[in-house]
Amino acid sequence: MSALATAIYRGRERVPAPDPADRGLAYGDGLFETMRVSGGAVPWWDAHLGRLAKGAQRLGIPTPDAAWLAVEAAALLADAPAEAVLKLVLTRGVGGRGYSPPEMPVPTLVLSLHPLPTPFEGPLSLRWCETRLALQPRLAGLKHLNRLEQVLARAEWNDPSMHEGLLLDAAGRVTCATAANVFAFVGGRWFTPALHEAGVAGIARGWVLANVHGAQEAELRPADIESAEALFLCNAVRGILPVGRLGSKAWAPHPALDELRRRLRRDVPAF
Amino acid sequence: MSALATAIYRGRERVPAPDPADRGLAYGDGLFETMRVSGGAVPWWDAHLGRLAKGAQRLGIPTPDAAWLAVEAAALLADAPAEAVLKLVLTRGVGGRGYSPPEMPVPTLVLSLHPLPTPFEGPLSLRWCETRLALQPRLAGLKHLNRLEQVLARAEWNDPSMHEGLLLDAAGRVTCATAANVFAFVGGRWFTPALHEAGVAGIARGWVLANVHGAQEAELRPADIESAEALFLCNAVRGILPVGRLGSKAWAPHPALDELRRRLRRDVPAF
Repeated sequence: MSALATAIYRGRERVPAPDPADRGLAYGDGLFETMRVSGGAVPWWDAHLGRLAKGAQRLGIPTPDAAWLAVEAAALLADAPAEAVLKLVLTRGVGGRGYSPPEMPVPTLVLSLHPLPTPFEGPLSLRWCETRLALQPRLAGLKHLNRLEQVLARAEWNDPSMHEGLLLDAAGRVTCATAANVFAFVGGRWFTPALHEAGVAGIARGWVLANVHGAQEAELRPADIESAEALFLCNAVRGILPVGRLGSKAWAPHPALDELRRRLRRDVPAF
Repeated sequence: MSALATAIYRGRERVPAPDPADRGLAYGDGLFETMRVSGGAVPWWDAHLGRLAKGAQRLGIPTPDAAWLAVEAAALLADAPAEAVLKLVLTRGVGGRGYSPPEMPVPTLVLSLHPLPTPFEGPLSLRWCETRLALQPRLAGLKHLNRLEQVLARAEWNDPSMHEGLLLDAAGRVTCATAANVFAFVGGRWFTPALHEAGVAGIARGWVLANVHGAQEAELRPADIESAEALFLCNAVRGILPVGRLGSKAWAPHPALDELRRRLRRDVPAF
């Protein structure tokens, strides 16, 4: 499970290891991106960098220069398998003891390459998680480093035939899976939870909302999910995966979902 | 602001630096303790280790052997100033990509020594923070590494004459300061917020609740705080500090608070 390659930077300076006083380690004071590498490149690079920049702005962390970052990522990808996963962690950098952010932070950047997970086309088996996501509008949508809720939720099961768990927020609204977003097909349209108070606004989710006519955000309750005509999870590593089972509910393949996956594959052949 | 000394362990093995794949950095998947060092020792060592063990149990992280940890901490303290701060970070250790906790985690431990902050006896000037603490019963009370809320709250001001900020939870209840607990003297008794849904249950707070007759948890609203006869903040580094000002409210020294500080000093001379 170790990385194929890792590059760590303090600002633009390459360093051998994270500093033990890094605020990423101390407070989860940072963001990350998990990117599919295909054909030696990252098809959704611009979308990932855009989300990173938005998150960094909300947290007040300087964003690395895009051109510099592209060069460094390309260097790491040069010796990598053509199909892989690139993870990026950006933190506020080294700090003293205390929450007060440094006035002139020098961000830490960690780029790491990982093997592509075993190919899997679904269908997925899901469960409902007991862990509820707290409501925090100031952090909702961001892919930040405070992920104990996801760790607790993912620790609820260890049956490898159970692929993912769906999470409700503290208000009982369906929010996302531990590491994917969810869409439900209802009345001929795709709906996904709005993420104003909890959850991560995924890049694959953004692709669906931008590219699929009528796809939109909505408030979804567990009954909406369980009565949907079709269901899928999506993330930037695996693309769109159909859900076949959730508790006692089961879904057969659905033509709308097959069509959606073909569209994604036309746009991003990796999926 | 750098540490005076640092020791990093993977399990019991000393390592030169944190691993970039440490789950503490990736997800904030861990806990920390911030301890006052006085006369070359840690007066509240047992209380800190007790809280660490409880937190580790709730997160499912193995706790370091207490005897081994005491020896390692003593070695670090041997060359330190007699008055200092010892910080301990415990994480679930190195993991692969993904939230699923390793079956056999080898925890990471970081011990670091820091200078004692400039002595300050108060009174404190406080503000109300706009950042609200999300309600998460599964993490409430723990001193875990998911601290973006505190970072955002502490970033709300940078006037050095403003010492701390009080935080409400999402339900509007007073919870704590960014790095301290709060007590209010009302009707001849000390009250502190219950921390079942948010906040960190501090060691100094625990000392007050255990040692001061009638001190107890209560639900406190901002009006209860502002109309209190006396107010203090407490943490394990500075002990008990009187509050002199909160927004437009001001408090004169109060004999109950003076008496409380004398009691603490009798028990723990460092304070």
